[in-house]
Amino acid sequence: MKTAKLLLHCPDKPGILAEVTDFITVNKGNIIYLDQYVDHVENIFFMRIEWELQDFLIPQEKIYDYFSTLYAQKYSMVFRLYFSDMKPRMALFVSKMSHCLFDILARYTAGEWFVDIPLIISNHPDLEPVAQRFGIPFHLFPITKENKQEQERRELELLAQHGVTFIVLARYMQVISEQMIEAYPNRIINIHHSFLPAFVGAKPYHAAFERGVKIIGATSHYVTTELDAGPIIEQDIVRITHKDSVQDLVSKGKDLEKIVLSRAVQKHIERKILVYKNKTVIFN
Amino acid sequence: MKTAKLLLHCPDKPGILAEVTDFITVNKGNIIYLDQYVDHVENIFFMRIEWELQDFLIPQEKIYDYFSTLYAQKYSMVFRLYFSDMKPRMALFVSKMSHCLFDILARYTAGEWFVDIPLIISNHPDLEPVAQRFGIPFHLFPITKENKQEQERRELELLAQHGVTFIVLARYMQVISEQMIEAYPNRIINIHHSFLPAFVGAKPYHAAFERGVKIIGATSHYVTTELDAGPIIEQDIVRITHKDSVQDLVSKGKDLEKIVLSRAVQKHIERKILVYKNKTVIFN
Amino acid sequence: MKTAKLLLHCPDKPGILAEVTDFITVNKGNIIYLDQYVDHVENIFFMRIEWELQDFLIPQEKIYDYFSTLYAQKYSMVFRLYFSDMKPRMALFVSKMSHCLFDILARYTAGEWFVDIPLIISNHPDLEPVAQRFGIPFHLFPITKENKQEQERRELELLAQHGVTFIVLARYMQVISEQMIEAYPNRIINIHHSFLPAFVGAKPYHAAFERGVKIIGATSHYVTTELDAGPIIEQDIVRITHKDSVQDLVSKGKDLEKIVLSRAVQKHIERKILVYKNKTVIFN
Amino acid sequence: MKTAKLLLHCPDKPGILAEVTDFITVNKGNIIYLDQYVDHVENIFFMRIEWELQDFLIPQEKIYDYFSTLYAQKYSMVFRLYFSDMKPRMALFVSKMSHCLFDILARYTAGEWFVDIPLIISNHPDLEPVAQRFGIPFHLFPITKENKQEQERRELELLAQHGVTFIVLARYMQVISEQMIEAYPNRIINIHHSFLPAFVGAKPYHAAFERGVKIIGATSHYVTTELDAGPIIEQDIVRITHKDSVQDLVSKGKDLEKIVLSRAVQKHIERKILVYKNKTVIFN
Repeated sequence: MKTAKLLLHCPDKPGILAEVTDFITVNKGNIIYLDQYVDHVENIFFMRIEWELQDFLIPQEKIYDYFSTLYAQKYSMVFRLYFSDMKPRMALFVSKMSHCLFDILARYTAGEWFVDIPLIISNHPDLEPVAQRFGIPFHLFPITKENKQEQERRELELLAQHGVTFIVLARYMQVISEQMIEAYPNRIINIHHSFLPAFVGAKPYHAAFERGVKIIGATSHYVTTELDAGPIIEQDIVRITHKDSVQDLVSKGKDLEKIVLSRAVQKHIERKILVYKNKTVIFN
Repeated sequence: MKTAKLLLHCPDKPGILAEVTDFITVNKGNIIYLDQYVDHVENIFFMRIEWELQDFLIPQEKIYDYFSTLYAQKYSMVFRLYFSDMKPRMALFVSKMSHCLFDILARYTAGEWFVDIPLIISNHPDLEPVAQRFGIPFHLFPITKENKQEQERRELELLAQHGVTFIVLARYMQVISEQMIEAYPNRIINIHHSFLPAFVGAKPYHAAFERGVKIIGATSHYVTTELDAGPIIEQDIVRITHKDSVQDLVSKGKDLEKIVLSRAVQKHIERKILVYKNKTVIFN
Repeated sequence: MKTAKLLLHCPDKPGILAEVTDFITVNKGNIIYLDQYVDHVENIFFMRIEWELQDFLIPQEKIYDYFSTLYAQKYSMVFRLYFSDMKPRMALFVSKMSHCLFDILARYTAGEWFVDIPLIISNHPDLEPVAQRFGIPFHLFPITKENKQEQERRELELLAQHGVTFIVLARYMQVISEQMIEAYPNRIINIHHSFLPAFVGAKPYHAAFERGVKIIGATSHYVTTELDAGPIIEQDIVRITHKDSVQDLVSKGKDLEKIVLSRAVQKHIERKILVYKNKTVIFN
Repeated sequence: MKTAKLLLHCPDKPGILAEVTDFITVNKGNIIYLDQYVDHVENIFFMRIEWELQDFLIPQEKIYDYFSTLYAQKYSMVFRLYFSDMKPRMALFVSKMSHCLFDILARYTAGEWFVDIPLIISNHPDLEPVAQRFGIPFHLFPITKENKQEQERRELELLAQHGVTFIVLARYMQVISEQMIEAYPNRIINIHHSFLPAFVGAKPYHAAFERGVKIIGATSHYVTTELDAGPIIEQDIVRITHKDSVQDLVSKGKDLEKIVLSRAVQKHIERKILVYKNKTVIFN
């Protein structure tokens, strides 16, 4: 059953919820999901609503326009509209570590996610055999300080050719530069191997070991121009003890990283994330 | 700011959400909380909505009647209506272990909860000094097989005299009989010291130790006539190892029990729980 | 650096620890790991000790005999001796679900584990493409009530031919019969998709949904003749809410299952598990 | 049964473990607990051993001297020796928040811990009624920038008079100055309401809210002269969502704080913690 998904936010005012649900119900849309939330600090209303299009009186191609004219202007809404048959297209960026890549490709192969993965991009050749094993084109873009801007420009062209809608950095060990972030705002998902904001930057497991923490974590977030400081999507942790070496942390952390990254990717694919300022609203 | 809280469920139909929110908005009620959920297996619509009464056009004492007549009948709703100045009145039932009792009284004393605790009932005298320390009347009702029905009848009288609206069994080591459960349906909260449905009944820590589990749990639930089988409100767990003795499990379990019980009590006080069949819907 | 690993248990008596460590030290073995534990209920001493063989005065092939004669008899020890260059050989049994299989093969391919996987056995053809993708021989043994004993007998022959030392049931949906369990005592690892002992048997996610639990789990254990009742190796859990459908539980459970199973397999490979009666002692 | 507990660390060398256990066994001490650990990065051997004194051939008052002479010198050991009848004496420092104080006093009253609490010290009068309720002397020391050194000096006198062996800062909202830290090295336990090293310093819940984390934590640690940077004893976390306000974080955090602090205090009382450089070794 084909559905529309509408995500919006706007300054909170009485009646918005009733008006939007009424708009759908009156036009014979069957609402199958609704979640809303008001941020009382910022006074912002957030909403995610999904309805079946079968008997909906407004033609699919006109919904955006109607909603924009009738409600978005009135309430100063920022909104996005998706249809259930629009399949997101994901590009995977990897370097040398395979655990996140395998986890994502296993889900993809098993049909767990409604997504296409037209290509894998890497700055190292190491994981090409994995890509081949799953039959996904692998593009090597070695990065040096000198060629970085140019290589990213070529990557962006390739992404555009393949109609990529979002990027997943599956332990890609290169800082993404501004031009790419601007091309994919809140659409580049990274996994950082620490419990952010602790241990920003390089070698977080070494830093965690040094500090003697009793718990380590992993954090998936959207990439912004400030390193490891973008909106957090998902975090999880695992207990460690004084007996764990740095190598043990790396090993335990891998399981965290792949699960936390995959949870974030799944929520992105399911259109359950709204970003406001530097935070995420995650609908159930 | 005085508010009304409405919890309801009914067979799902298009338009319910829009109608209910419209009812409040049109009558100048400012909605400050709304959460709804549709059980697509049972086809039941659940909703919790809270609004400010200040400018609400319908007088407080008529809201129940109006809502009942205008909507509840039409949609075959089961609903409950609370006002923010109605303070729930809790009776505590205890036996010999003090950890849950202390935890609840500490929160009560610190003003964490909007609740009154007019009395503590026990089948053993052991915890009377704790009750005295907190200045709460302590009533001793020793229970034997012979006097159980009669003692419970007297307890029910006492509860009625004190206007008790719900009961918390804070490690009360006696099975509650049917007459009391019927007097307080879905209003008696128990804490069971296992991860239900594992280890129903007596001595769950011994059973957990015997089975060699690697995780133990605690479960708070509403009491029904079937032992440890009522609607689950909250559960949590803690890791154990082969090194933990039964006594270690008891000790680690105590922390779980008090936290899990208090979380459940808090949700009950905040009117965030709806029971349908033998399950709970817990609103955020 | 080549090492010996000794795991033992025996009735507890004073002096055992000192004697065993002395045996190794006196013979110029460098102890790099030692963990011991006394079960004061059963009065059993458990120990795991690892030492470097480089300067050890007793030749590797005679250690078993010496230790047996000098200590094991004296203290009625049950012990196992491993050398670090003995690579365990794992057979994977699968049916239709791929998530555990992918997780194990990804680790295997990435070289995370010191193990060989000479073959995959299945009662369904579905996962043959996955096996091919990773270049591991896939053997199909369809099972019916009639042919079960005979098929298992043929599987056992195949396992023997390949020198398999332990079996991992990666969501293999068939009860293993006694002849195979006896051939691999405490060497068949299963993953059950519930928090045992809750929800033994078929369809645990459906049962968890029915019961309305707030947390689901997964349990890896050694297979014994009683269904889902063998010694537990590892468990973990994830929170759910009333909003989660059975399908959501299945989906969240998959991540649990693969991680819990892989943790158990890793501990088995590293020779960190001792089974006593129906429980495991897991050394760090 | 009276026991001795020995905690030690020293540069790792072959034979230490055998020698120490031999020393006890040969002198007819019955070892009831032993745990050891080698830090292979620092090459340090850590050990905790406990034995019954009943038949031990060396008189209790000479054990320290014998062990020091025979082993500690030889191996450059740092060691501490405790006897099971030496009851630690804890001073509680509080300010205005009662949750940690209640939790500790409830355990103390219920006899969960082998400890004396001769006094409570506070910089605010707010919690005096709680102290009175539990019958523990309450001493008020208001702190200003001007009087801080002098007040702490007087506190130290009072602590000495009462034979206090360690201090617990149960949400004491004052930085402890160097003179007190030096008087109680690795014997002042603090609870910080964040997942250290994230959100060091004041208002960590506000900072966590601002950053939009999905998990909050609490950390208990020994106090050193660098703020919130001492050796970590215990940490734990709880999940939050975008729906949680700062006040919700404070409320959820309270449960974390009290449990995490009490776990740390319990380990300290049980003599299970060794500090080496800026990290803790926590024996089971």
